Amino acid sequence: MKPWLHGRKPGDRRVRVERPHAPYFRYAGPGLLVAREAASRPRTPAGRAIARVRGMLFGRPLSIHEEITERLSKKKALAIFSSDPISSSAYATEEILRVLVLAGAGALLLSLPIAIAIAVLLAVVAISYRQIVQAYPSGGGDYAVARRNLPAIGSLVVAAALLLDYVMTVAVSTASAAEQVISAVPALADGKVVLGVGSIALITLGNMRGLRESGNIFALPTYLFVGSALTMIAIGVFRIVINGEGAAPAEPLPGAPEIPQAVGVLLIIRAFASGSVALTGTEAVANGVPAFNPPEARNAAATLAVVAALLAVLFIGITFVASSFGVLPVDEPVRRTVISQVAAIAFGNGSIGFYLFQTFTALILFLAANTSYNAFPRLAAILARDGYMPRQFSFRGDRLAFTSGIVVLSLVAIALLVAFGGDTHALIPLYSVGVFAAFTIGQSGMIVHWLRERPVGWKPRLAINLLGCAMTGSVAVVVLIAKAPASLLVGVIIPALVLMMLFINRQYRASAQHLAVAPDVVIPAPHREERVIVPVPGITRAVVQAVNVGRSIAPDVQAVLISDEPEEAAAIKQRWERQLPEVPLVIVESPYRALVGPMLAYLDVLDRTWPADREQPITFVVIPEYVARRWWERVLYNQSANRLRRVLIGRPHTVVVNVPYRREEEAQAEATT
Amino acid sequence: MKPWLHGRKPGDRRVRVERPHAPYFRYAGPGLLVAREAASRPRTPAGRAIARVRGMLFGRPLSIHEEITERLSKKKALAIFSSDPISSSAYATEEILRVLVLAGAGALLLSLPIAIAIAVLLAVVAISYRQIVQAYPSGGGDYAVARRNLPAIGSLVVAAALLLDYVMTVAVSTASAAEQVISAVPALADGKVVLGVGSIALITLGNMRGLRESGNIFALPTYLFVGSALTMIAIGVFRIVINGEGAAPAEPLPGAPEIPQAVGVLLIIRAFASGSVALTGTEAVANGVPAFNPPEARNAAATLAVVAALLAVLFIGITFVASSFGVLPVDEPVRRTVISQVAAIAFGNGSIGFYLFQTFTALILFLAANTSYNAFPRLAAILARDGYMPRQFSFRGDRLAFTSGIVVLSLVAIALLVAFGGDTHALIPLYSVGVFAAFTIGQSGMIVHWLRERPVGWKPRLAINLLGCAMTGSVAVVVLIAKAPASLLVGVIIPALVLMMLFINRQYRASAQHLAVAPDVVIPAPHREERVIVPVPGITRAVVQAVNVGRSIAPDVQAVLISDEPEEAAAIKQRWERQLPEVPLVIVESPYRALVGPMLAYLDVLDRTWPADREQPITFVVIPEYVARRWWERVLYNQSANRLRRVLIGRPHTVVVNVPYRREEEAQAEATT
Repeated sequence: MKPWLHGRKPGDRRVRVERPHAPYFRYAGPGLLVAREAASRPRTPAGRAIARVRGMLFGRPLSIHEEITERLSKKKALAIFSSDPISSSAYATEEILRVLVLAGAGALLLSLPIAIAIAVLLAVVAISYRQIVQAYPSGGGDYAVARRNLPAIGSLVVAAALLLDYVMTVAVSTASAAEQVISAVPALADGKVVLGVGSIALITLGNMRGLRESGNIFALPTYLFVGSALTMIAIGVFRIVINGEGAAPAEPLPGAPEIPQAVGVLLIIRAFASGSVALTGTEAVANGVPAFNPPEARNAAATLAVVAALLAVLFIGITFVASSFGVLPVDEPVRRTVISQVAAIAFGNGSIGFYLFQTFTALILFLAANTSYNAFPRLAAILARDGYMPRQFSFRGDRLAFTSGIVVLSLVAIALLVAFGGDTHALIPLYSVGVFAAFTIGQSGMIVHWLRERPVGWKPRLAINLLGCAMTGSVAVVVLIAKAPASLLVGVIIPALVLMMLFINRQYRASAQHLAVAPDVVIPAPHREERVIVPVPGITRAVVQAVNVGRSIAPDVQAVLISDEPEEAAAIKQRWERQLPEVPLVIVESPYRALVGPMLAYLDVLDRTWPADREQPITFVVIPEYVARRWWERVLYNQSANRLRRVLIGRPHTVVVNVPYRREEEAQAEATT
Repeated sequence: MKPWLHGRKPGDRRVRVERPHAPYFRYAGPGLLVAREAASRPRTPAGRAIARVRGMLFGRPLSIHEEITERLSKKKALAIFSSDPISSSAYATEEILRVLVLAGAGALLLSLPIAIAIAVLLAVVAISYRQIVQAYPSGGGDYAVARRNLPAIGSLVVAAALLLDYVMTVAVSTASAAEQVISAVPALADGKVVLGVGSIALITLGNMRGLRESGNIFALPTYLFVGSALTMIAIGVFRIVINGEGAAPAEPLPGAPEIPQAVGVLLIIRAFASGSVALTGTEAVANGVPAFNPPEARNAAATLAVVAALLAVLFIGITFVASSFGVLPVDEPVRRTVISQVAAIAFGNGSIGFYLFQTFTALILFLAANTSYNAFPRLAAILARDGYMPRQFSFRGDRLAFTSGIVVLSLVAIALLVAFGGDTHALIPLYSVGVFAAFTIGQSGMIVHWLRERPVGWKPRLAINLLGCAMTGSVAVVVLIAKAPASLLVGVIIPALVLMMLFINRQYRASAQHLAVAPDVVIPAPHREERVIVPVPGITRAVVQAVNVGRSIAPDVQAVLISDEPEEAAAIKQRWERQLPEVPLVIVESPYRALVGPMLAYLDVLDRTWPADREQPITFVVIPEYVARRWWERVLYNQSANRLRRVLIGRPHTVVVNVPYRREEEAQAEATT
């Protein structure tokens, strides 16, 4: 006998296979098994086929132990974590230009200094995150910082802001990807929303089927985009600096006001706030520290620095070329993105280089959207563990847990995409406010952290986080005000999410309290009497099986037939007494043709007939079921059984027992006897 | 001891209440109870309040016995069965005019002879139904005739045609009611579809809440409409015959062709076929024969004759007035129905009489739509009994059964209404083809009936049914061809419904065969061993309760904890061994974070360790559940339990036991101990 088989009495000779658990479990001590991968392997042929294909494409699933041992090299980590931040260079320049263009074409030259200022902000934020990475090397980013340093409400606001951030990453990235496609192929202009929704559907499907960010496939688009974007900037800079091309920079349009003086400070601030969408995604590295090769914190910090530097170069470079050539956002007749116009200038409009670059841009945006499909379920799982989200989000490895997160993420992103007509520019305020709110609270958490811990050299670090907090907070407020109607939605969404999480938490805490067992009471075996009721529709194999299961639970078994056809019922009763003489059958005629009501009433009557001086017995209601093998069979069978179960679930002293009847099983049984 | 309490051994003193079953059941012999109304009475306060209101409005529910004793007087039957046929006079004239207008205004005068020809057809159909009523006095109409005289496929085609008929009655009647409202209040023109869908929603709600055709409320609109329509016709005829008013009948438009010669025979046939929509609803009486006072057949036949005569008078009268005054269907700027124009002529446009008449017309159409909400679930229940529809349609008295029928009916009717833009004229071809197909097959059933039975005087009866069959069949074919694109839908819908019913029937027959028990085998008590597995998430009251239920099922009980946090699991195990020392706990670590897979794998391992020479034991998987009291609690709790149950339902030798934990129950238990 194997010691892990607890339920057996010593000397019991039941064990016949030498190590029957071996394929599924590793024996790890008395009463302790560790599941192997095979234990959660799909059991249907179709499921196994899908798993095989997935294994070939993405490698086999990783256990929590392996996840820790399989670390990312800096090169791979760079590709995986940078698609989100770097892809924002595809639309950030355009956001600046869209504000400045309001002050006339001349004001566009201000875009370069504004881009440089945003790069400075990026540096501050990156250094702040470097400090977060070093202080919280176990990952979790802003949520971890807020949770450990701020009151609960702070961490919930961050969590809500991050959930919104992930949704917006999907919506904005797919919208922008669609616009890049349209900029290259204007004929598709009418299908913008369809393109965006289609992309989300594709990513959803991929993730449902187990697509993950492992594999080199995911590194490729990042490198292709970065490489071609750097080439594009180099060509542009070469033509401006060496060839002296580009729109004459200092030549104001006739009648346009003088440049800097006329442009209000307010406009510059708004342009700065709009362009700071370039920073979205910077938080990704801080969330994934444990995935790096040791020393984790140092490698993550180095990666973060490289990502930030790359992003700064791309952003400033694209802005420089765009403003030098006088590129303006084009909406009519079809949207042409600024980055696509820059690509057309650098590679030549309609050239292979142009189309390739647009493809790479769309691909990295697509990839950026995909990162949310990892981050959203992960954060949802953490929140579920902490009791702030429904529990089904927490079992990460199970198909269903991811499915819940993926479906919620996709549906909300699609709703936003459709509501905003697939317009990147319209979606971005929501995105920026959410991201900068998370930044700000994360930084304030770090401020509390430094004030509390005061390690060696804490003062300059505090100063950086103070600066970061002030700057990101200002950006959040400016965007909130400047993009007022749309951005204020955030002021509804985040509080609503926080309230929902608080509500869920209160429920779970209340139920945990209700369910709590005093920790030192020894719980004795019960001595309750038992009664078995089998609702039957007639005499079938399923009924016979259920009656027999009932008889094996307790000797007191009654079958009950609810019928609105008295003659039929009488015939069944006669046959029953002949075939199942040991089990009494009660006929309940139901002239009102109801089924559930009379059944409940009958159980109530049984309860009332029980002597008052004895505790009520447990009533086992044994329901025969016919196992549906296909989806449409569920419509045809067991509807009454399901209805009865739903009603009985609320009845005291009552336990519902489902006895499924399977055709194959019985056929086997027959063949052997 | 009461003899109906079967499960008790003699001498058992458990019975403490004298007649505990009395409020719910009537004792009708050993092992036989008859449910009283109270047994299916709602158990929640809200449910009881609704039942009280419903009782005040519509009387208490009737049992099958009472339904038979509560017969309808001819006067009430007339009101109840006539709303459907008589309401068709609100749109039948218009259908004729819409065809004739194609041949010029002069051709409109043909409408009167065509209406008279349709009235002759109506007489033939009514006499045919009179014969059906006398031959099949137990009701069921065309379906009953077809089922007894034709091959199965014939009765299924009739059933499909009738189901379509009921759906179309709802769609056409509400569409026409909306058009009557718009004819009186043109400002509502844009809301036509909304009005129609709103009406359907209202009727649905009423029927969901238990609205039935009982009560004098339902007789009123019929009498109001018939009375005011007869008045309207009388005024019109008076003005034409006595005052000599009306458009000069014989005066052709200048340049228009001479009237009858130029109008093709084809056009006349098409106008005849279009106008024969007046006959829809005539089948209603034949379906409801058992509801009449005895002698049922005679009273039903008399009622049928009165309904047909009334309909003929209204239809011919409205057509006469309309054609004499040269009324034409108006579509622009807003639809004005022919009947509303006739009302405007008779009562004066904008007069109170006009508005009252339009209200009555809309009301009787509304009522006609409502009749389908009784007929559709009734036919669905009959089909379900015969195994051609899912079983949940068959328990008529239960809320859910009606709900299924009502929801299906409403959804399909709304879909058709929206698809056809709420246009009565566009919907009518579908309606006519369905109804006339049912007529035709019903008549052919009667032909077979006479040929087979050959009672005294069968030959003239056969002749009538032959004539009816030929005429209704011709109309069905003409409408099918004349309204080709739309009407051909029927050729898709009816075969699809028939195939669905055949498919369902095949499934039920196959499963009945699989489940059949040889009728004379005495089934012995089982001697299978038992094993109880309790999946637990930790130590809670719900878990303790489930473990105790498990212990009362069988002595071999094991708890299994699937965990992805080894330390937490170890702590739980320690506590478990202290508090529940008699029940072994197996920890299954799940490094892949899966829940269901390892559980299934563990059960498989247990099966494999069972000795090969002994039959596999029944495995009871006892799942603790936390009872959701509100809908949102279902999202928060038991998701894992539900998932596990769904997976285990397909496992051999496995029985799932749901042990619900209720807060109130435990609180009580605590208070008493």
